[in-house]
Amino acid sequence: MGDELLLGATTDTNAAWLGRWLAARGLPVVRRWTVPDQEAAIGAAVSAALDQARLVVVTGGLGPTPDDRTRDAVAALLGRPLAEDPTVLEAIARRFRDRGIDELPEPNRRVAQVPHSARLLANPHGTAPGLALEVPGAGPERRGGGVVLLPGVPREMTAIVEGGLPELLADWFAGERPPIHTRTLHTTGIPESLLAHRLADHLPGAGPIQVAFLPDRRGVDLRLTATGLDADEARCGFDEVEARLAPVLEPWRFQAEGGDLVEAVSEALLARDLRLAAAESCTGGLLAQRMTSRPGSSRLFLGGVVAYANEAKVELLGVDSALLERHGAVSEEVAKAMARGVCRRFGAEVGVSLTGVAGPGGGSVEKPVGTVCYAVVRGGSVQVRRERFPGDREEVRDRSTQAALALILRVLEGRSESSEVATDGGP
Amino acid sequence: MGDELLLGATTDTNAAWLGRWLAARGLPVVRRWTVPDQEAAIGAAVSAALDQARLVVVTGGLGPTPDDRTRDAVAALLGRPLAEDPTVLEAIARRFRDRGIDELPEPNRRVAQVPHSARLLANPHGTAPGLALEVPGAGPERRGGGVVLLPGVPREMTAIVEGGLPELLADWFAGERPPIHTRTLHTTGIPESLLAHRLADHLPGAGPIQVAFLPDRRGVDLRLTATGLDADEARCGFDEVEARLAPVLEPWRFQAEGGDLVEAVSEALLARDLRLAAAESCTGGLLAQRMTSRPGSSRLFLGGVVAYANEAKVELLGVDSALLERHGAVSEEVAKAMARGVCRRFGAEVGVSLTGVAGPGGGSVEKPVGTVCYAVVRGGSVQVRRERFPGDREEVRDRSTQAALALILRVLEGRSESSEVATDGGP
Repeated sequence: MGDELLLGATTDTNAAWLGRWLAARGLPVVRRWTVPDQEAAIGAAVSAALDQARLVVVTGGLGPTPDDRTRDAVAALLGRPLAEDPTVLEAIARRFRDRGIDELPEPNRRVAQVPHSARLLANPHGTAPGLALEVPGAGPERRGGGVVLLPGVPREMTAIVEGGLPELLADWFAGERPPIHTRTLHTTGIPESLLAHRLADHLPGAGPIQVAFLPDRRGVDLRLTATGLDADEARCGFDEVEARLAPVLEPWRFQAEGGDLVEAVSEALLARDLRLAAAESCTGGLLAQRMTSRPGSSRLFLGGVVAYANEAKVELLGVDSALLERHGAVSEEVAKAMARGVCRRFGAEVGVSLTGVAGPGGGSVEKPVGTVCYAVVRGGSVQVRRERFPGDREEVRDRSTQAALALILRVLEGRSESSEVATDGGP
Repeated sequence: MGDELLLGATTDTNAAWLGRWLAARGLPVVRRWTVPDQEAAIGAAVSAALDQARLVVVTGGLGPTPDDRTRDAVAALLGRPLAEDPTVLEAIARRFRDRGIDELPEPNRRVAQVPHSARLLANPHGTAPGLALEVPGAGPERRGGGVVLLPGVPREMTAIVEGGLPELLADWFAGERPPIHTRTLHTTGIPESLLAHRLADHLPGAGPIQVAFLPDRRGVDLRLTATGLDADEARCGFDEVEARLAPVLEPWRFQAEGGDLVEAVSEALLARDLRLAAAESCTGGLLAQRMTSRPGSSRLFLGGVVAYANEAKVELLGVDSALLERHGAVSEEVAKAMARGVCRRFGAEVGVSLTGVAGPGGGSVEKPVGTVCYAVVRGGSVQVRRERFPGDREEVRDRSTQAALALILRVLEGRSESSEVATDGGP
């Protein structure tokens, strides 16, 4: 819900997050409506949604301002009169008191209006609780379900979903939905089509466990879904499937709860009590920025040098200027020297470097746009790669950063010698 | 259109881009449907859309694979039989030949299927052209309009829109729509509410020129819209309004065609033949990464140091360790020393630094999470700021980077002494 989504002032990241969260629980989203802040439009969309699905999730329009119309629209549509909930009101007042405001502003009282017989879903990050309303005739076959109203602020929305929706779904669809369990395996550095080809003979056939490929620019996730098995059966089944896939996946696989390769690299560094430093040219600080995006990164990331100019490569990283002249800045030799140099500079145990042609200009026949050399140093040994990455400037920078992170992980895990490397730039 | 949007594998950035593009031309989006790759669902959504609006834009589902169903669905809905277009076919074959593939794969022939009487919109970046179909009875009042089909790949979609839609809209709605002209003024560093308050007495009243506030995390844009004026009248009107607003906007205003402050900073450096270097702590390379995101940045950005650890601040940037001990890493003094150090290191004429507490940990009563000190050195003089930015780790990093870029611009333009600074962390 919201004009700002239609006018493009806000990109709808809630939709993608909810889509993934629900799909991972066996509830694929079948239709989505984006509507303006008008009661009639909201009511019509929720009504149409209830014809298509048994579960309807609405985000946005629960706040205190006059353009927050969701609560009223849905209450009217479903015939559930609104009434002020004293518990919610007191929680809101407490939040304001905590911020030193003793008198609750009148508009904020509106947030305590709750539709009759709605279930409240706790919002740890804001004043508006989620509201869940059972709807007996919901869905294309009128089997019943409900509507869940959530605030539009992503942090609040996700916290309410994670905290309250699993139990709600279990209650609403008790015994009806076959239990769904999932497990996700992460890979990076191999295109989806090639991975699918390699895994073809190892995937499970028809049965309770199915495998889906979820590709994006940074890698391909495999989602294992078990339908109709209990938790123990699912775990056993997953273990079995995973054991069959593991030898094929090994060169490209990484473990990360949130799916971000930086997580895996950070944990591998921490586990070995090693610290990383980064020397970047074409990626301009992207690797450093990703490595420092997680809290606590100062324990494992010492810092980096963005050596965009050749003089910086010489001065700050101690790259031999003769090397630059002989091989050019984009070369395996210079990548190795940069990685060694940044290690020395920061006193780090592990060093990584990237130097390449991100484009759109600067390419040549020998080193076309997308060519990136990257190296990882640990102790006395160095691993270096040269790849050509597809896409525009932003994509080349992103893909090559991901590839360099993957190489760090392989080096740390001692997989670098045996592993294969995709030469076409990943997925 | 697309399962990947519903399942959340892809975030729908096309929708926001189109929303902005259309709104800026006086065509606010009134409703959006996201539907799976099924002909019936696509047809139903386009049909419902044509009841609500005279112009319907569809993205996705024009490619060669079996799940690309948009072309067939819309051709069937509107009763326009598909036929192979030899010109489109030849253009596709040429693209393949250019990549060394002489025989066009059979599935790719599908892309040359064009609905009867469709207008083709050139796609400079891909094989599938945009397709525009006039629909006489479109819209809630049946006044007529049409459907535009575009590929889902953002780069292709945006290029087709920019290249072909202005003329198409002029043809379809000739003489009907009052001409709409817009001009956008960019600001950063002042919250929307405060800016609105300051501008209240300077905004135009009822009349052909209206001003809208478009806030996001990095700043607030003011969009001037002229309705019913010809191009010259609109320009004069805009100049007049802008002249009234300019003195108030001055401290926060910047010029950038694409709206990115990096653009303004880059052009200010180029115009003065100056080169920048960056020393970053809490932002971990984000400023360097943004400065190098544009092609040609090597002429104006020499490089940077991500000095996450204190030792790096001493070793690489020459910050006095006594200074670190006395004031702490997050202090105006250290920020100044970092900016001076990185200038020296890279031989740059301008240096910028950031050091702060991005959180979630590491805050104290004196320096709570969100506290960031940043400095800009040019020649002998240095400007330093200390601000507390709201939000989580990612937001603090993003907001403080934007604030530091704004300070660079103010210093380059000689505005730094007279300007006010928002102390609450921007919009």
